[in-house]
Amino acid sequence: MYVRKSRLLTPGPTPLLPAAVHAMAAADRHHRTSEFRSVYSGVIEDLHYFMGTRNGIGLFASSGSGAMEAAVSNLFSPGDEVVVCVAGKFGERWVQIAERYGLDSVILRRPYGESVAPDDVRTALSVHPDVQGVLVQSTESSTGVSHDVEAMGEIVGHTDAILVVDAITGLGSSTLNIDDWGLDVVIGGSQKALMIPPGLAYCSVSEKALKRAETATNPNFYFNLRKHIDAGPRGDSPWTPASSLILGLAESLRFVRQVGRDRMVRNAQLLARAAREAAGAVGLRLFIRNAIPAGAVTAIRPPEGMDSSEIVRAFRERFESIIANGQGSMKGQIFRFAHLGYFDFHDLFATVAELEMILQLLGHEVELGRGVEAAQAVYLEAVASEESGA
Amino acid sequence: MYVRKSRLLTPGPTPLLPAAVHAMAAADRHHRTSEFRSVYSGVIEDLHYFMGTRNGIGLFASSGSGAMEAAVSNLFSPGDEVVVCVAGKFGERWVQIAERYGLDSVILRRPYGESVAPDDVRTALSVHPDVQGVLVQSTESSTGVSHDVEAMGEIVGHTDAILVVDAITGLGSSTLNIDDWGLDVVIGGSQKALMIPPGLAYCSVSEKALKRAETATNPNFYFNLRKHIDAGPRGDSPWTPASSLILGLAESLRFVRQVGRDRMVRNAQLLARAAREAAGAVGLRLFIRNAIPAGAVTAIRPPEGMDSSEIVRAFRERFESIIANGQGSMKGQIFRFAHLGYFDFHDLFATVAELEMILQLLGHEVELGRGVEAAQAVYLEAVASEESGA
Repeated sequence: MYVRKSRLLTPGPTPLLPAAVHAMAAADRHHRTSEFRSVYSGVIEDLHYFMGTRNGIGLFASSGSGAMEAAVSNLFSPGDEVVVCVAGKFGERWVQIAERYGLDSVILRRPYGESVAPDDVRTALSVHPDVQGVLVQSTESSTGVSHDVEAMGEIVGHTDAILVVDAITGLGSSTLNIDDWGLDVVIGGSQKALMIPPGLAYCSVSEKALKRAETATNPNFYFNLRKHIDAGPRGDSPWTPASSLILGLAESLRFVRQVGRDRMVRNAQLLARAAREAAGAVGLRLFIRNAIPAGAVTAIRPPEGMDSSEIVRAFRERFESIIANGQGSMKGQIFRFAHLGYFDFHDLFATVAELEMILQLLGHEVELGRGVEAAQAVYLEAVASEESGA
Repeated sequence: MYVRKSRLLTPGPTPLLPAAVHAMAAADRHHRTSEFRSVYSGVIEDLHYFMGTRNGIGLFASSGSGAMEAAVSNLFSPGDEVVVCVAGKFGERWVQIAERYGLDSVILRRPYGESVAPDDVRTALSVHPDVQGVLVQSTESSTGVSHDVEAMGEIVGHTDAILVVDAITGLGSSTLNIDDWGLDVVIGGSQKALMIPPGLAYCSVSEKALKRAETATNPNFYFNLRKHIDAGPRGDSPWTPASSLILGLAESLRFVRQVGRDRMVRNAQLLARAAREAAGAVGLRLFIRNAIPAGAVTAIRPPEGMDSSEIVRAFRERFESIIANGQGSMKGQIFRFAHLGYFDFHDLFATVAELEMILQLLGHEVELGRGVEAAQAVYLEAVASEESGA
């Protein structure tokens, strides 16, 4: 009846950067030419900037789960003991991968919506002195919770174990000082802050971790870290690269350099705060409890007695917008919308206005405009602070 | 100085299908929606048509090497004996993967340009009765040679071993009756006959092979075959799919259905024959010896005393066309150009005309037009045969 634009408000995939879309459409290029090698080595260099690390970086044609497997299959041997932090669906994935590779997991599990405390990691490491690694999500996108990986890096850094951080959703939406904090492996994807479709994963790997790879006995081939880390700076990949996505990624990383990586993070963090304030202003509660909220995604409980699926469906049917339901046991209990990458306050104001109307149409009492007003307040405060030079 | 269009004449990536490019540019879609699930399950169904098999199909976000690893890590256990047919660079890759996974390889190696005879496989299987699998390329794209996988299927089918066929270049450019010939695993990629960029791999897996997967002990996670084969027909993937490439693949497979899979193969085979005739007509020799030539790619020796790199460079510098040099030890010894997927006689006539001029400019005596004439003869014969209803 009316014009409606389709929009992705999910924590991956996120809205695509137009310049990247155009580059991907011009993908009839061969990957073993000097032109493409120059694009590829530039992507590796720009990933160092984006991630803020001097560690070697491996870039894979795969989803993020492939890079998670890479960490486990390259760095550990069957029988190795690892601590696995589980506070959501992606923590559970660490458990599955560790099991597949014969690791002996010490699982630190917290109820969904909470996070694993660094002190629990400290205790686990002292009770299990043979632990070889700690596996964790920096941002658990299924619940909207962040882990304090800075504190974990400090703790793990005093041991021989290595800290493996799934930052697929965290990179570009939260501060991660990889080298200073001792984050040995940090994993990212293409369809989050980097604004292109899924199909690429990458990870930085510390010398401490690479040393371990030399003696680890689990088999790997496609995801061999050393091969990828050595080849990338020369513009090469051990196997045929996903060339269209690489060309798109080059444009996305150019955009990141223009905006600045810290400002990308502040953008997400500010939007996240505005989203939380807006949720509160329309009478909704956040899903997280006693945890650091994510910059990438906000998980919100529906009003008492309402199934969150109704809200997800209304966003799609009324506004052609895709927001995320809860996953697994959280389905129907929460809805999640993202605010990272190519996402701005304009997007947020409209999304909050739509949420207000959806809640009202579903019978929840809302004073229209209160949520938007809360988001506006966050925006105006940030602008004032910026213009006063703070 | 003059307008020159850039062209990919390499055996992967191949020229992109415009409809697929357009679909990939409209990739801001979420992969867990009913709309995308319907695209994904349609892709799986159309892959069954393209491959011509009822076997289950796994589809991965990876390059073809990932699916090669999938076959080894899912179907075999450390210590298993396998026969590996090596007649080029991709045969060597089988050896590497098998070694990584602790297999005991019986290597049947032939000089590059030749192929492994089915009788050699038969002999190896009788000398090594405990062999659990045979690994081979249907088309070895580094040399332009085809293996007789029909005869190998007959031989292996009488044993408990399974036949694993890398058909990344062979699918869509040569006849492969997967089910009738007993090809247990057949592996394909996206950047060959399927006319989209690299980043997707897929494989069909027979019941005999899946049964073996139940007891094989090598670890795998990202490339788990059973998970992918079960999820695909429902429109699901175990991990986030490479959604832009999936949308492009849907268009490519629609094109394959329009042309017809057998006619796709005949197109490549006819172009390959015309390419071989043209090479002979300009006084060049083919690289293959006593082997079935590939439908996908033709490998040609340069004139005596000429480095093939000069021909490759001239194609790029004079005509903006990318043809392939020899790989590894074959570099400088051969040049290769492809004729599969979105490639027609128009492309071939011009390529041959350019080759004639390049050879002349490099000092090789060529009567201009003789190569083109040879290609025209193949075309006209095919047209006459088709129009007479043969």
